[in-house]
Amino acid sequence: MSQTGSTAGDATRLPFPDWMHEVQARVGAALARHLPPAEAIPGRLHEAMRYATLNGGKRVRPLLVFAAGELSDSPLSRLAVAACAVELIHSYSLVHDDLPCMDDDVLRRGRPTCHVEYDEATALLVGDSLQSLAFEILARADFGDSPRQLEMLRLLARASGSCGMAGGQAIDLAAVGTTLNQPELELMHALKTGALIRASVLLGGLCGKTLGAGERDSLDRFAKRAGLLFQVVDDILDCTASTATLGKTAGKDAAAAKPTYVSLMGLERAREFAADLGRQALAALDCFGERSRRLVELTDFITQRKF
Amino acid sequence: MSQTGSTAGDATRLPFPDWMHEVQARVGAALARHLPPAEAIPGRLHEAMRYATLNGGKRVRPLLVFAAGELSDSPLSRLAVAACAVELIHSYSLVHDDLPCMDDDVLRRGRPTCHVEYDEATALLVGDSLQSLAFEILARADFGDSPRQLEMLRLLARASGSCGMAGGQAIDLAAVGTTLNQPELELMHALKTGALIRASVLLGGLCGKTLGAGERDSLDRFAKRAGLLFQVVDDILDCTASTATLGKTAGKDAAAAKPTYVSLMGLERAREFAADLGRQALAALDCFGERSRRLVELTDFITQRKF
Repeated sequence: MSQTGSTAGDATRLPFPDWMHEVQARVGAALARHLPPAEAIPGRLHEAMRYATLNGGKRVRPLLVFAAGELSDSPLSRLAVAACAVELIHSYSLVHDDLPCMDDDVLRRGRPTCHVEYDEATALLVGDSLQSLAFEILARADFGDSPRQLEMLRLLARASGSCGMAGGQAIDLAAVGTTLNQPELELMHALKTGALIRASVLLGGLCGKTLGAGERDSLDRFAKRAGLLFQVVDDILDCTASTATLGKTAGKDAAAAKPTYVSLMGLERAREFAADLGRQALAALDCFGERSRRLVELTDFITQRKF
Repeated sequence: MSQTGSTAGDATRLPFPDWMHEVQARVGAALARHLPPAEAIPGRLHEAMRYATLNGGKRVRPLLVFAAGELSDSPLSRLAVAACAVELIHSYSLVHDDLPCMDDDVLRRGRPTCHVEYDEATALLVGDSLQSLAFEILARADFGDSPRQLEMLRLLARASGSCGMAGGQAIDLAAVGTTLNQPELELMHALKTGALIRASVLLGGLCGKTLGAGERDSLDRFAKRAGLLFQVVDDILDCTASTATLGKTAGKDAAAAKPTYVSLMGLERAREFAADLGRQALAALDCFGERSRRLVELTDFITQRKF
């Protein structure tokens, strides 16, 4: 894969918070460019797509794409495409998850959810269209390596569908009011949140120089731990943080009698479990040495996040 | 693109109805293989995905893929992949269109709609997952020509999203109870139905030998006319055929005060318009000679269809 323009490694001198803000700004700008303008017909749909996506999200998945991109010295332009694709899938899933027939939520990232601000039919089409757009921009980009691009598309599609994110959502729905044991809970989260987190990490690694088989295995091991870690922290925050801090309704899982790591193992053990997962994730990065600095910092950030 | 196995042209000796049944059976079998088994976790979601897809649909879009494949002497194995991808997008759109917040329909292909047979949340995830699966199988197939495959993915994604099918659906929603003039109505249908019909034709053409620029232009002209033709015939059938014949609720457009070609120009002129579009579509195929025989037969079939 030819290396053109600046690469993810060029920015390693920035302190982590500055790097994070830079990536967030870069991805926000790229999303704004990739989304159809609000003036383009049908205007209401395009306006709602922008509303649901350009809303100051934390961009955790894009951050993972960019951090993993440092392992393969990936060009920033490619990372931006992969990051946008992943974030569009994530945004679509939030819009659909918030619908009345799913979680029926009215608040997202501190603002009315898409179907509240617009209407249910529009929100449905927003999610559908954001999903199509994710695959469109990944297929449209010119990476100069078509087989690699196909691999990325395959990975993202698999992570999004019934054997990934949407499948996890289905298990989650079926589990409301029931008790899951830890393996069942881990399967649900490995799909619902983990699949797209994992895809973000792997896509970032695929944007640059080819990684060796051992390195890919290590990265995948990291990606799986990081996905689970993210969800455990999410469960902890759902029962400890306020709605104002989260920008979404807090305490929803308990109210909906959803099984979580906190309901399964209690708050204290869930915290220990998170710390343990964080350590396992970092251990998987050992083989990369200094190249994994951003991933290490990002893992610490995810472990310690408060929102 | 290397040519392996039997090609679309090999079957040209079959009479049209036999060819149609053969393609329908081939696509049905391929869909059954590509869809996750109902036993795979999450079982209810996978069962519902199969329910929504393996239901004896007419498979008009797969037929267009296979018929267009004869122009480029395309291998049947590739056509089956492209046909499944297009049909999965079509099936997802039907499941979402039938939801209460959209058309709120209870009957589809003679059976309860997906959200009636299962539930709304499952139907939402079925549509989402079918869309992901469409891109997954197209990205996963080994066509031996990655740039071509990327082009097909780009085309299908574009045709599905806010500048294609989903966008047309949004215009349709906004138009309920209003009066559209013919250019506005044509734009709506060019997106809502036309985009995916056009994609089917172009994807079929892309499965085999490279077509010349002039041939591609002609095929695109055909595809656009055929898409509009299909919709005008649909509008005519909605007000002339019975629910039992259609397998879906008849007269819905008029009941919902939706603008149609019949409401715009009256039944008689709509029929003339359809015949005219059929002639224009066939004229665009002239340059292909005998290679376009199936597309000619299929166009006649679409023009004269009664369901």
